Amino acid sequence: MESMFKTVQQKNDGPLSERVAQQISNLIKEQNIGVGDKLPNEFELAENLNVGRGTIREAVKLLVARNCLEIRRGKGTYVTEELGKIDDPLGFEYVKDKLRLAKDLYEIRVQIEPWIAAMAAERIQEEEKDELRRRCTAVEETISTGADHGETDVALHQYIAKCTHNDVLPEIIPIITYGIDLFTRIREKEPIENTLQYHRVITDAICSNDPEAARQGMLDHLKSNLWCINRLEKMGLESEAVNG
Amino acid sequence: MESMFKTVQQKNDGPLSERVAQQISNLIKEQNIGVGDKLPNEFELAENLNVGRGTIREAVKLLVARNCLEIRRGKGTYVTEELGKIDDPLGFEYVKDKLRLAKDLYEIRVQIEPWIAAMAAERIQEEEKDELRRRCTAVEETISTGADHGETDVALHQYIAKCTHNDVLPEIIPIITYGIDLFTRIREKEPIENTLQYHRVITDAICSNDPEAARQGMLDHLKSNLWCINRLEKMGLESEAVNG
Repeated sequence: MESMFKTVQQKNDGPLSERVAQQISNLIKEQNIGVGDKLPNEFELAENLNVGRGTIREAVKLLVARNCLEIRRGKGTYVTEELGKIDDPLGFEYVKDKLRLAKDLYEIRVQIEPWIAAMAAERIQEEEKDELRRRCTAVEETISTGADHGETDVALHQYIAKCTHNDVLPEIIPIITYGIDLFTRIREKEPIENTLQYHRVITDAICSNDPEAARQGMLDHLKSNLWCINRLEKMGLESEAVNG
Repeated sequence: MESMFKTVQQKNDGPLSERVAQQISNLIKEQNIGVGDKLPNEFELAENLNVGRGTIREAVKLLVARNCLEIRRGKGTYVTEELGKIDDPLGFEYVKDKLRLAKDLYEIRVQIEPWIAAMAAERIQEEEKDELRRRCTAVEETISTGADHGETDVALHQYIAKCTHNDVLPEIIPIITYGIDLFTRIREKEPIENTLQYHRVITDAICSNDPEAARQGMLDHLKSNLWCINRLEKMGLESEAVNG
């Protein structure tokens, strides 16, 4: 049976390098060249795909820009570990009204993360519990050193999503937690302690396989953050100020 | 106040072309160069950023690959309409087990799209109702011609998300509807008629500002699709077969 999945928007009418990039990308899929594997060299690719080496180089650059390939100097071209995954895939970097963006994102998070936490509590494997607790502690440690805890915070929420064993959810978390730094930077001490308490409640609930407590803990956590955004607005930190 | 949003993973340690791409990207944001606007020419950019024209060309190619810029022959370089948005941002194209992927995606859709439909029913503007009905009819028309209705189907679900006036949700739809074609191709006539009926029920509920009916209609619609995936499995179309 032919593959029933069409490639999303195959750009067969684009420039030659774009079509060759698509062919290399197909090669990776069809020949089962995996994450971290080395790609055939420029000569072989040029011969196989019947184009010049210059075109291969252009196509490889496109795939590097899209985080499918990486060039290791003196070693060759390799398939990236994060094959095809892009930072900031929805172009949030270019959104002008960042406060509006934060509200839109929290509206989504409040809806889906309590569900994710409940599902994690149902599906977490015994051997995942230690790692979850480790990530919860990591946020506390980052905060106690006074460092920005945005990254460890996202890592905790992402690991909770991983415990659902739905492979797409952990990929959605970095998108919907975009700009989490906004809150980590402006929050005073009291709400940060709240955050830690909520994280601990959620982590314990998941590790005790208690979906309802996990759902409620996550809901309270995110609603407290939402309250923070609303306070931001009331403090007169209007969109323009937040946007820099 | 400085911008409180850090650029997600600024690659300041990468190759020169990567850093210059970041600078051009900053220029677009800071100088309010909008969607569809023309970028300063190669000479000006090279002078402003104090690098050679070759580096500017490389950096522009990176931003073209990331769908931030497009080169119009003989006219110059322009900011794309879909600034920074990437097809298949999570690299689903490279996921080997497509049936598993479809199940993971439907698990998410069943959770969030009924909520989206309900919110659309609450927030839709009078002037959006005609467009919503038009998109609902477009799916019916595509199917009656026997063509693949995947694209018009996604467009309908995306417009429903647009009616929530949450700017992020319409961007999430193309991600979670990835591979919708799988079902449009293998479904027989009866379930397609179901799809049309559900679409009509959802559209009418949203246009009548009835959140509960919209939520229930969307839930029934997606559950019927989920039933389809499960039947697929039972029919012995195991992952390997579906994957091509």
